[in-house]
Amino acid sequence: MTLMKKAARSVPDIIRRAAKAEHVDAKKLAKSVAAGRSIVPHNPKHRTRPCAIGEGLRVKVNANIGTSPDHCNLREELVKARVAVEYGADAIMDLSTGGDIDAIRKAIIKKVDVAIGTVPIYQAANDAGHILDMDEDIMFRTIEKHARDGVDFMTVHCGVTSASVESIRKAKRICDIVSRGGAFLAVWILKNKQENPLYKNFDYLLEMAQEHEFCLSLGDGLRPGSVLDATDKPQLHELAILGGLVKRARRAGVQVMVEGPGHVPLDQIELNVRVEKTICKGAPFYVLGPLVTDIAPGYDHIVGAIGGALAAYYGADFLCYVTPAEHLSLPDVEDVKDGVIASKIAAHAADLTRGLDWDKDRDMSKARKALDWEGMFRHALDPVKARRTRAKRPAKSKDKTCSMCGKFCAMAAMNELL
Amino acid sequence: MTLMKKAARSVPDIIRRAAKAEHVDAKKLAKSVAAGRSIVPHNPKHRTRPCAIGEGLRVKVNANIGTSPDHCNLREELVKARVAVEYGADAIMDLSTGGDIDAIRKAIIKKVDVAIGTVPIYQAANDAGHILDMDEDIMFRTIEKHARDGVDFMTVHCGVTSASVESIRKAKRICDIVSRGGAFLAVWILKNKQENPLYKNFDYLLEMAQEHEFCLSLGDGLRPGSVLDATDKPQLHELAILGGLVKRARRAGVQVMVEGPGHVPLDQIELNVRVEKTICKGAPFYVLGPLVTDIAPGYDHIVGAIGGALAAYYGADFLCYVTPAEHLSLPDVEDVKDGVIASKIAAHAADLTRGLDWDKDRDMSKARKALDWEGMFRHALDPVKARRTRAKRPAKSKDKTCSMCGKFCAMAAMNELL
Repeated sequence: MTLMKKAARSVPDIIRRAAKAEHVDAKKLAKSVAAGRSIVPHNPKHRTRPCAIGEGLRVKVNANIGTSPDHCNLREELVKARVAVEYGADAIMDLSTGGDIDAIRKAIIKKVDVAIGTVPIYQAANDAGHILDMDEDIMFRTIEKHARDGVDFMTVHCGVTSASVESIRKAKRICDIVSRGGAFLAVWILKNKQENPLYKNFDYLLEMAQEHEFCLSLGDGLRPGSVLDATDKPQLHELAILGGLVKRARRAGVQVMVEGPGHVPLDQIELNVRVEKTICKGAPFYVLGPLVTDIAPGYDHIVGAIGGALAAYYGADFLCYVTPAEHLSLPDVEDVKDGVIASKIAAHAADLTRGLDWDKDRDMSKARKALDWEGMFRHALDPVKARRTRAKRPAKSKDKTCSMCGKFCAMAAMNELL
Repeated sequence: MTLMKKAARSVPDIIRRAAKAEHVDAKKLAKSVAAGRSIVPHNPKHRTRPCAIGEGLRVKVNANIGTSPDHCNLREELVKARVAVEYGADAIMDLSTGGDIDAIRKAIIKKVDVAIGTVPIYQAANDAGHILDMDEDIMFRTIEKHARDGVDFMTVHCGVTSASVESIRKAKRICDIVSRGGAFLAVWILKNKQENPLYKNFDYLLEMAQEHEFCLSLGDGLRPGSVLDATDKPQLHELAILGGLVKRARRAGVQVMVEGPGHVPLDQIELNVRVEKTICKGAPFYVLGPLVTDIAPGYDHIVGAIGGALAAYYGADFLCYVTPAEHLSLPDVEDVKDGVIASKIAAHAADLTRGLDWDKDRDMSKARKALDWEGMFRHALDPVKARRTRAKRPAKSKDKTCSMCGKFCAMAAMNELL
């Protein structure tokens, strides 16, 4: 019996532990998981701290790592994973497409105790040698391999179908398809003149998910890659397909979340969250950014933090980070750290609007009021950078102030007065 | 006759030039300036590219620079000003409180051709030696000196009154007062048991603004310094006072904008913009951040970009940048650059929602689709960083892709297919 089915009858231990970490009622969480409005991705083969994603819970952050054909260094990927978790990532996706992909995945799963996600189609295309040489068999064998290794959730682009790909042709988008998995499948469908195997054989996929207890992340292969392409027909067409698949997954007792855009102008973010929550009946929404403008390569972690904060405020549950290297190169360790922190800021800003984690801001504010610098560093999301920035220009006039205002410190003046 | 009064009768040349830069109708802008819903801060003594701030216009960005008692280097401040303008700052505030303040201000005004703002009370306190030694005379003499030097807009904390300061005592805030000017005046009022001269003699201030044609920026001396203190009685009390002063300034034909918070949770930002626009009858709103959480010192430019984007989306007109050094130290040149870029991203994201500047995103998206890297760099907010990030990990498999996906590039696959 799957975790989701068990949750309908009792409170499985995994869910009890996830609820405890979240400071929520375990029965309530079990009910939410059973209804599909929350998920706890947890492959029994992977020892993790179970983590719940969904309704009323803290907003979670995912960090994508992994090698590419152009840059492959397992040790570096392990450092990225460690740094991402250290700065608060709740999940790690290994998107490796270079080197010994199996060995890299196994090493990451072994080292990392947060939920691990993958996109098996990347490896399937790689192992086949060419996208067109992928057959159904290699796609599903790869999924099974990842499941056996202990992957907790997998992105499957089931909504990229003959029909939805056709809508891309008609849409006259500037950027057509920017999702790697989406592009692979679009090429495969159009060249082979066959339906997407992940869509056609969705029931088989559900059986595998039941057997191995992994969570499905329904990929948005047709997400917009430019703010000018946002919220268009192909995107909504795919989302409607995903809504239908969510129902089927729930009936099968398979945990499922839905991936969302992408590049979205500020004033379309609320709409995008609401339409997902409506069409997919409250399934957890996992957003990539969203990026609210295209013009800031090198700073897309900031662009994504703006979109992510807003999306989470309107109800998105899970933020996929964006690093400063987005659109430019494979991220390095520093990029990973910057990406995680930017997403954590966005997630926490939204958590405050859910009434969660106010203590963190209270502690920081009290330390500020007391000019207690060690306290400020202790409560900072990144104590090292906070300390370094203060040290760069030390205060001269008074020990407790900083070099911004020195003897004209407002805090010091008010503390003296009141 | 003041610019505002002239704008009610005709289209002054300054407004015509500001309208041209903004690609808006000059008559419409003149009408908006006459009504007080837009401003064009422009001291005739300062040669600037005139810049309009307000209704229906592009969101503008201000960068604060200036020395402190702990760190004083005129040359560095001039570099900060140059870098800020280079990356798109529409205004610069010189907040110097260290060294030869007069010489620094004059040098900045001479070098910089965007609007210059100051907070004269900083210099008044400095010149008096101690806050309590400031008298009315030195406050107004300093304002006049700044006006004669060509300062285009000045922050005056007229809403910090005996009554509003009293409300701070009762409010039991965590951080009381965090505005420097606000704290100076609160100390002055309470210790001297006298009313704030800038409030008491507001008519005299208006006369000076009429004579020298500078714009008033009504400071929010009681703004919250913690998300826990946001949108409370003292803040709203002060805002109500400012609303009354806006009316008086308009009657006198003096251009005026209103400064806003500060530290504000995500879900209170819309309210804060709406309440300012209502109480102050559509006066341009100049927001400091807002910062949507307190826990990220070292990354407050990102925290401020989230709040600034949302504030501007809801109608704020002018964003004061926040640098990574906020709450920690006097910013250096790199901090200034990072702060300006983060605010420009926020401003541009909001501009898109106003139907403005979509061409920038279109150009970038087309370059991306064509894998035209020189085009992408050209259209980037920071071409240098974009180029450097790509070069850090060059592509190996194909010249036109990047090291993120290499031969698995979605853009390349789709270009080949379609």
